[in-house]
Amino acid sequence: MRVLVTGSAGFLGSHICRAFVDAGDDVTGLDTKQTDVSGVKPVIGDFLDAEALSGAVEGQDVVCHVGAVGDVYLAAEQPELAARVNVSGSVNIGLAAQKAGARVVYASTWEVYGEPHYEPVDEAHPCNPDHPYNITKLAGEQMLLAQGKLRELPVVALRLGTAYGSGMRTNSVFEIFIRKAMAGEPLTIQGDGSQGRQFTHASDIGRAFLLAAESDVRGIALNTVSPELTSIKQLAERVIQRYPTKVSFGDPRPGDVPPSYVSAERAEDVLGWKAEMDFEDGMSELLEINRS
Amino acid sequence: MRVLVTGSAGFLGSHICRAFVDAGDDVTGLDTKQTDVSGVKPVIGDFLDAEALSGAVEGQDVVCHVGAVGDVYLAAEQPELAARVNVSGSVNIGLAAQKAGARVVYASTWEVYGEPHYEPVDEAHPCNPDHPYNITKLAGEQMLLAQGKLRELPVVALRLGTAYGSGMRTNSVFEIFIRKAMAGEPLTIQGDGSQGRQFTHASDIGRAFLLAAESDVRGIALNTVSPELTSIKQLAERVIQRYPTKVSFGDPRPGDVPPSYVSAERAEDVLGWKAEMDFEDGMSELLEINRS
Repeated sequence: MRVLVTGSAGFLGSHICRAFVDAGDDVTGLDTKQTDVSGVKPVIGDFLDAEALSGAVEGQDVVCHVGAVGDVYLAAEQPELAARVNVSGSVNIGLAAQKAGARVVYASTWEVYGEPHYEPVDEAHPCNPDHPYNITKLAGEQMLLAQGKLRELPVVALRLGTAYGSGMRTNSVFEIFIRKAMAGEPLTIQGDGSQGRQFTHASDIGRAFLLAAESDVRGIALNTVSPELTSIKQLAERVIQRYPTKVSFGDPRPGDVPPSYVSAERAEDVLGWKAEMDFEDGMSELLEINRS
Repeated sequence: MRVLVTGSAGFLGSHICRAFVDAGDDVTGLDTKQTDVSGVKPVIGDFLDAEALSGAVEGQDVVCHVGAVGDVYLAAEQPELAARVNVSGSVNIGLAAQKAGARVVYASTWEVYGEPHYEPVDEAHPCNPDHPYNITKLAGEQMLLAQGKLRELPVVALRLGTAYGSGMRTNSVFEIFIRKAMAGEPLTIQGDGSQGRQFTHASDIGRAFLLAAESDVRGIALNTVSPELTSIKQLAERVIQRYPTKVSFGDPRPGDVPPSYVSAERAEDVLGWKAEMDFEDGMSELLEINRS
């Protein structure tokens, strides 16, 4: 299988590249930065440039569209960038994939649901995003699915859980906690730390992309979320167990997405996917990465 | 009150301009085409050009953001244009309005709801758009409301009913039927014509913008829809009553939005708005317009 991964130089993109390389696929990575994943053909380019994109998509069987403004703070600060990259960029992907006869697997997010009306949240739950990040990610998903319907384009959207693993952004709570604890500085939990998240390991997400790419389902969005619920307080405790330091509590972070328990049952039914990495093992791996 | 209306050269924009001019407001019309509404200061410009927009918004009290890819066929054909104009364009409006300290009234659409889960559809009904037109219109609305929350920008979104009145697009079903009937050609109804629409007269929509601009409510979306339900068959019958011709039935149009009955009760509570023009009177006016 010939696969193009956008955002291949980023945290999730590189894990997804690795999943396809390990499966023996022919993988090209498109990013504005250099992709350094062994076995991946790197292409420097911007999917906002429809012509360059068209060249990169030509001849591919599958496009995994992972490239995005994925940093919620950046999306809030520069909503025009989030709209351009996450919505217009996804439309470009759809048009190029249609021209090339390629299948699209789109990196969506569990955050599209907003405040839960019932739990566990399945894919029939209403979507009510209220932040430039999740609004634009949902619009990108909807535009791809609509293009799929109007233009015979096979699209699967994966509504990913909050991902963690090696190579995360330095402003993620994981990296902030680990680096502070390693330096002996206290960790500050914003709010009371009781909010749970279904942290989903990047290797599980890579496998979900692989399964969605190999499958022939289309026109659907699937929750791709680990069932394990971990609070920020538990995350901090796991970090200080390895690198002992103090924990304090600060004001809640404005704009935090309310917690909701999301079910990935349909992804298991449709793709045979479920998360395999438990949080304890994922954290053990993450804590031992060489950060010097 | 100093008001900027975007899309002022278009069908709805010009009616909205007229409502403000009639109320004695100081009205500027921003459009890429010349605005020919008496009493309106025309500015030729594109709201996709953030710098030009910033100049036009400076000193305004209110921005009525009506400019959009409003033609559903064009949005389906050129989804990248719909995304750019309807999403990125709306974000630009929000940023410029925030800088100018202006209030935003956004032209949204009843079509954001998609398939109805219950009726009448109120503003708490889930939004499930599935076409490049209503997806991008909803994302524009959500981005403005999110900017409102993150940046202290007062925003009201009006989810408008299917509008009719003088100056409609020539590819609207109203103009197609009237022109064909005037020429003695048969009218073709796509599907069985039983689907109802709450056609809402442009003068009522103009008044809704005026009320929303004068009000101090913010951070909400309001259905702005006439309670009267009219089928396409009834529309055809009203046209051939004035210009007798034959009616035939063709295949349903793909991608037609499913009908749903929408309640504007909240707009009445919050803005004191309800539709005043009934369909019979609105059609009598429309049928007598000089089209030669």
